[in-house]
Amino acid sequence: LTRGRELRIAMVGFGNVGRRFAELLPGPFARPLKAAGARPIVTGIATARHGRAIDPHGLDLRHCLRLVRAGRRLDAVHEWPDTPSTIDFVQTVPADVLVEVSPLDPIAGEPATRHVRIALRRRLHVVTANKGPVAFALGRLRGLARRQGRLFLHEGAVMDGTPVFNLVERCLPGVRVRGFRGALNSTTSHILSRMEQGVPAAQALREAQALGIAEADPAHDLEGRDAAVKGCALANALMGASVRPPSVRRRGITRITAQEVQAAARAGRRLRLIVRARRDGGAVRLRVAPEKVPLGDPLAVSGADAVLVLETDLMGEIGVIEGGGNVDQTAYALLADLVAVAGAWSREGGRTRLCG
Amino acid sequence: LTRGRELRIAMVGFGNVGRRFAELLPGPFARPLKAAGARPIVTGIATARHGRAIDPHGLDLRHCLRLVRAGRRLDAVHEWPDTPSTIDFVQTVPADVLVEVSPLDPIAGEPATRHVRIALRRRLHVVTANKGPVAFALGRLRGLARRQGRLFLHEGAVMDGTPVFNLVERCLPGVRVRGFRGALNSTTSHILSRMEQGVPAAQALREAQALGIAEADPAHDLEGRDAAVKGCALANALMGASVRPPSVRRRGITRITAQEVQAAARAGRRLRLIVRARRDGGAVRLRVAPEKVPLGDPLAVSGADAVLVLETDLMGEIGVIEGGGNVDQTAYALLADLVAVAGAWSREGGRTRLCG
Repeated sequence: LTRGRELRIAMVGFGNVGRRFAELLPGPFARPLKAAGARPIVTGIATARHGRAIDPHGLDLRHCLRLVRAGRRLDAVHEWPDTPSTIDFVQTVPADVLVEVSPLDPIAGEPATRHVRIALRRRLHVVTANKGPVAFALGRLRGLARRQGRLFLHEGAVMDGTPVFNLVERCLPGVRVRGFRGALNSTTSHILSRMEQGVPAAQALREAQALGIAEADPAHDLEGRDAAVKGCALANALMGASVRPPSVRRRGITRITAQEVQAAARAGRRLRLIVRARRDGGAVRLRVAPEKVPLGDPLAVSGADAVLVLETDLMGEIGVIEGGGNVDQTAYALLADLVAVAGAWSREGGRTRLCG
Repeated sequence: LTRGRELRIAMVGFGNVGRRFAELLPGPFARPLKAAGARPIVTGIATARHGRAIDPHGLDLRHCLRLVRAGRRLDAVHEWPDTPSTIDFVQTVPADVLVEVSPLDPIAGEPATRHVRIALRRRLHVVTANKGPVAFALGRLRGLARRQGRLFLHEGAVMDGTPVFNLVERCLPGVRVRGFRGALNSTTSHILSRMEQGVPAAQALREAQALGIAEADPAHDLEGRDAAVKGCALANALMGASVRPPSVRRRGITRITAQEVQAAARAGRRLRLIVRARRDGGAVRLRVAPEKVPLGDPLAVSGADAVLVLETDLMGEIGVIEGGGNVDQTAYALLADLVAVAGAWSREGGRTRLCG
């Protein structure tokens, strides 16, 4: 009975998603990885506020979680030459795959894009739930991954672990995505739903923050920047576009009044912040704006964390809905991609020759 | 420049789906198969009313389509020893993969199940859009396919080419499906929608028949038998159940009145024929019944051909919607599965050693 070879995982980012992933990895996430031939160990964790730790024999995840929750630094369990920065960490951590879950800067997609690039150059596989690298640099990162013979997977970048990127890649061979429309930002969906029920926008935003669904800076949600970044990630990955968030025509929900929301409701419609993509000649055009969606339309589904409708050539329209929307689902996105990495890694003998 | 090796396809059934598949195969379907290393040829077609044809060098599909559309028999182009029945055809046709799209008998799932079994015994891969074998005999057919080292794929059995079976298999590793609910029968969804608009049920049924979405015997739709068969196919494939259609608690829409439909609409609800599955101890229980679904629920989406919501352990709820619903989408299901067959077949050298 083989337990699989050790698949060495390095993590950048240890916030809500990273911690939940670390909790689930020895539990329910271990079985599907084992089935793919891998026994996962975490050889490094780099955090923004709790230092960094590397142990080539595998860190004790429970201990790391305890340290961080107690507000202490991970350096206590570091067993490796010093890494003065996260960049140094990514450049030297002994690993087969980088799990990139650092906080996103939606203006430039950094430093996540840089982490991904360095890891791929070292011939690590990369898995991320970070939409920045996909929205800002997908073409170059895909090219680099291909040249290096490594996987760059990012299911969690949009709609958490609900299959979107992998859906098209693995289940819709030969299909061309002609366009899409989606309600992808759960904070604005929550606020608009609550405004329909008579709750003031400011209070609804506080609720979204308490639920942990709002961006660190909620202006990114309200002004449609988060939706624009997600739209670019989808357009680049699914439609072969090369659009970047600053070029998206964008209007947020900040000027929407309670009266408007309620008038729409009386007319059988729901306000939602919608991102739309369509081909226009050779280019792909993206637009983010509030729309009055008729009840009965997939984009008006209640309580959905996110909804996406793909418009395709061979398969007509396919809608995908994420119900709930919590940190477990983002952690799962990392697992789904890691299983694919484990498969590729097992097939080539379970060894990653590191460079750099 | 290689054009790929010849992948020999035998087809049983040449109705709407089979003919559309044959039209698309040399066109848009050829490219993804070629990318998987295969150049498809159709070496045999068995029909219910137009005879059978086998040509080991590949039939001229356009010519076959013309013959059948002109009401003529395919025997004119038969280049092989006589096959007195479809069973003989499946037992002897030279092929790498059987595409099974014969008409379904929803009472017993035959003769499709028998065709699948014979083909797998001969070590052909099998692709089907037929829900019968999946609802009535999945466990045995999967076991047989595994022992023979062949694929038995059936994406088209439920929701046409919208990824459902492949979605869970390829995109949700490690996830357990705890239950599901779905509006899977498009004929009853159409009738109930039209009744809401004041159209009599009988007229709405005639419309569904004109649209080509109704079963050959519409009682299978109206009495929930089609939904029960689809529910069993899903429960068996996604939940590891071994339920068969006769054991499903089932109530159809035949007693639903226009008054009921319209009263529900005034209360913000839509009547839909819903199939639900849940675990009950070790067993999986299935129920088909009309339900009053609130507007805003995924199951009440307008104009959707089918909607399915999966309830999972690691990923919460995931909804999938098929928009439109036409014969192209069923033909696409066959292609999506064939691409997987082509991949497996290429990896083992593009040769199928036939037995029997």
